[in-house]
Amino acid sequence: MRLLPPAEFLPGEPVTNAEMESRFGLHEKWLSMMTGNRTRHFCSAEPAAGQASSTRELATQAGRRALAAAGAEPADIEFVILTTASPDHLMPATVNLVVDDLGIDGVTTMQITSGCAGAIQGLFAAHALLASGLRRGLVIGADSCLKVFPSADRIKSMRPAELINFALFGDGAGAVVVDDDHTGPGYLVEHIFTRCIGAGRQPAQLIRYYGSEGCPTVDGPHGPTPAEPWGQEDYKAIEQHVPELAATILDELSRATGTRLTDVEHVLVPQLNGAVTERIRQRLGVAPERAVSCVAETGNNGNALPFIQLSRTANRIGDGIGVGGRIFVANVESSKWLVGGLALRHVPEAA
Amino acid sequence: MRLLPPAEFLPGEPVTNAEMESRFGLHEKWLSMMTGNRTRHFCSAEPAAGQASSTRELATQAGRRALAAAGAEPADIEFVILTTASPDHLMPATVNLVVDDLGIDGVTTMQITSGCAGAIQGLFAAHALLASGLRRGLVIGADSCLKVFPSADRIKSMRPAELINFALFGDGAGAVVVDDDHTGPGYLVEHIFTRCIGAGRQPAQLIRYYGSEGCPTVDGPHGPTPAEPWGQEDYKAIEQHVPELAATILDELSRATGTRLTDVEHVLVPQLNGAVTERIRQRLGVAPERAVSCVAETGNNGNALPFIQLSRTANRIGDGIGVGGRIFVANVESSKWLVGGLALRHVPEAA
Repeated sequence: MRLLPPAEFLPGEPVTNAEMESRFGLHEKWLSMMTGNRTRHFCSAEPAAGQASSTRELATQAGRRALAAAGAEPADIEFVILTTASPDHLMPATVNLVVDDLGIDGVTTMQITSGCAGAIQGLFAAHALLASGLRRGLVIGADSCLKVFPSADRIKSMRPAELINFALFGDGAGAVVVDDDHTGPGYLVEHIFTRCIGAGRQPAQLIRYYGSEGCPTVDGPHGPTPAEPWGQEDYKAIEQHVPELAATILDELSRATGTRLTDVEHVLVPQLNGAVTERIRQRLGVAPERAVSCVAETGNNGNALPFIQLSRTANRIGDGIGVGGRIFVANVESSKWLVGGLALRHVPEAA
Repeated sequence: MRLLPPAEFLPGEPVTNAEMESRFGLHEKWLSMMTGNRTRHFCSAEPAAGQASSTRELATQAGRRALAAAGAEPADIEFVILTTASPDHLMPATVNLVVDDLGIDGVTTMQITSGCAGAIQGLFAAHALLASGLRRGLVIGADSCLKVFPSADRIKSMRPAELINFALFGDGAGAVVVDDDHTGPGYLVEHIFTRCIGAGRQPAQLIRYYGSEGCPTVDGPHGPTPAEPWGQEDYKAIEQHVPELAATILDELSRATGTRLTDVEHVLVPQLNGAVTERIRQRLGVAPERAVSCVAETGNNGNALPFIQLSRTANRIGDGIGVGGRIFVANVESSKWLVGGLALRHVPEAA
C-alpha cells in the first residue's frame, strides 16, 4: 500500500488557554501545567456559513484536501473509510454523508469507531481492502467534541479530576489517499498492525452518550446532579502504561523493517497531550528533531491526530528534512487498550 | 471465504403487541397492522443477573454461540468485527469489551457503525482481512435500542408518524466464524459487495444521540418540548425504493453466480418489518418456501438480522431443506442508502 500526500483540516482559529478560561472557566495556568497544550481548535457550536460545525464537515474538508494533494478525482476513489469517536448521529453513519459531499458515489464505505488508535485501524482496513482487489481509496480520521461536552455551567462546578477529561480535547480531521502502488513515489507501507490488548485490563477512558433525555440525575445538595460522569479517564494507568506500550510498538516496527529506531528520520509518538507526549519522547530516547508532535497546538483530536502528524511529516520532507527516510508511527488507545504501529518508507519523486 | 454455522441471540422472552400497549402505550392493533410484527425482544432496562442489558452482552452471547457452533476456541480467532448502530459508549468501542468477555486477546478488532447494511459490511471487511493474510475471524452484528428510546411518558404524547419510528425495533445479536477455507464444508462466499448509493438522496433514517444534557428543548403548550425528534424515517421513500433496490441486488448476485433467482434455495430478503418484507417478497417473485424472514418475530434488530436469517437458513438446511444449495442475501439500509449483497453456496459435510 502507498500513501499519497496526507492532508489536515483544523476548524476556526486556535483557541488559547486564556480563552478556555473565559469560555469554560478552566484556569489558564492549571490547563497549561496539567496538559502542556497551548492551543486547540473547536467547531462552531451552531451551523454557520463558512465554519465547520460537525464531524461531517471536518471530514469532508480534510478529504477534499487529500484528494487534491493526491491529484485524485472523486471518480478515482473505490472506497472511503472514516474513523471517529464522535459521529454526528447514530444513523446514518457520518461517512455516508461525507461521500455525498465529496461527490463520490456507488463505492464501499466504512465507518470505524475508534479513538487514538483509529488512524491506524483505518489504514489497516484500507490495506486489507486493497489486498482484496480494490485499487484506490480515501481514509479519513475526524473528531468533534463540543456536541458531547457538558455545558459551561456544569463544567464550572466540576472537580479537577473531571475537568482534565476534556481539557485535553480539540476538533480536527486528517485524511490520505491510498492505493495499491508498491513502488512510489509516495509513502510505502512496510509494516502495519493494530491489536486490542485489553484482556483483563480496566478501560482507562470511557465517554458516554445518551438518548433525548440525557444523563439520569440524582438529588444533590444544589439540586439534580448527573448520576454518572460523561467521561472518565484513568490518568494513572495511562501515564504508567502508554510509554512502555509505545516502546513495544516501536520495537516491533524496528524488527519488521530491520531499522534501528535511531536511524528512523521521523518518529510519530503517541499524542496524549503536550506534557505526556514530551515525557514519552524523552523516555523512548527519540531525538527532538526526529519526533513529530503537534498535540500541544492542535489539542487531542483523536482520530485526526496521526493524519495531522503525517501531514506535518510530509511538510518536513518538503522542506528537505529526512527525504527518502523512514517514518514510524506508534498509537496507543487507552480506552480498552489498543496498540497500533505503522512503518512507512518515503520514496521521492524521480528527479 | 467460508462461513461456519451462524448463531443468534435474542434477549429475554418475546414481547407481544399487547405488552407494547401496556408498556409504551402503543396500540396493539395499530402496531400489528402498521408493522406486521407480532413480537420483538428487548434487553433488560437495568443490568440484572442472567439478563442481557447492553449491546456488549448481546454481542458476547452471540459470539460465544458462534465459536461453539464452529468448534473454534478463542485462541483460534485472529480478528473480531462488530457492526452496530447502538454501541454502549462513544469510547471504548464495544467490540473491545466483547473480545475481553470472549477470552480473546491481542488480535485486530474493528467496530463498524452501520444499520441494516451492517452484517454485509462486516462480512465484506472480514473478506478483505482474510485476503490480506489473516486466517480466521469472528463477525458479530448486534443492536440494543432501549437506551436511546424516549421515555414511555414521551412516547405516549407522540403522533403516529413519530411512533412508527421505534414501533419497529427490537434487540438482538448474531455472529459467525469465518475463515480462508475455499472448499468447505460450510457456506462458501461466491460474491459479496457493499456500496453507498446515497449521492443526492436525502437520508431516509436519522437517529440522534446527545451528551449528558440530552435533547435541547423549546417551549411548548404543555411545557418544554424536544426541539427535534430523536429519530426520523421517511417511510414513503423506503416503501418506494427498497423493493426496487432489493431486485437490483438479487440481479447482481444472479449474474455473478450464473444462477437464476428461481433456482436459489434460500433467499434472505430485506427485513424492514413483517408487512413491508412480505410485500417485497411478493414483488420479487420469491416463493414463500424459499424466503427466509424473521422480522415479524424478532422485530427489526438492525445489524443482527441478517445473521439471524443465516442462522435460520442453517436450521432449514439441518432439517434437510435446500441442502447443498445457494443462499442469496439482499440488504438495503435506507439511512443514507446503502446496498449489500451476498451469495453463498452450501457445501455439506462429506457423508
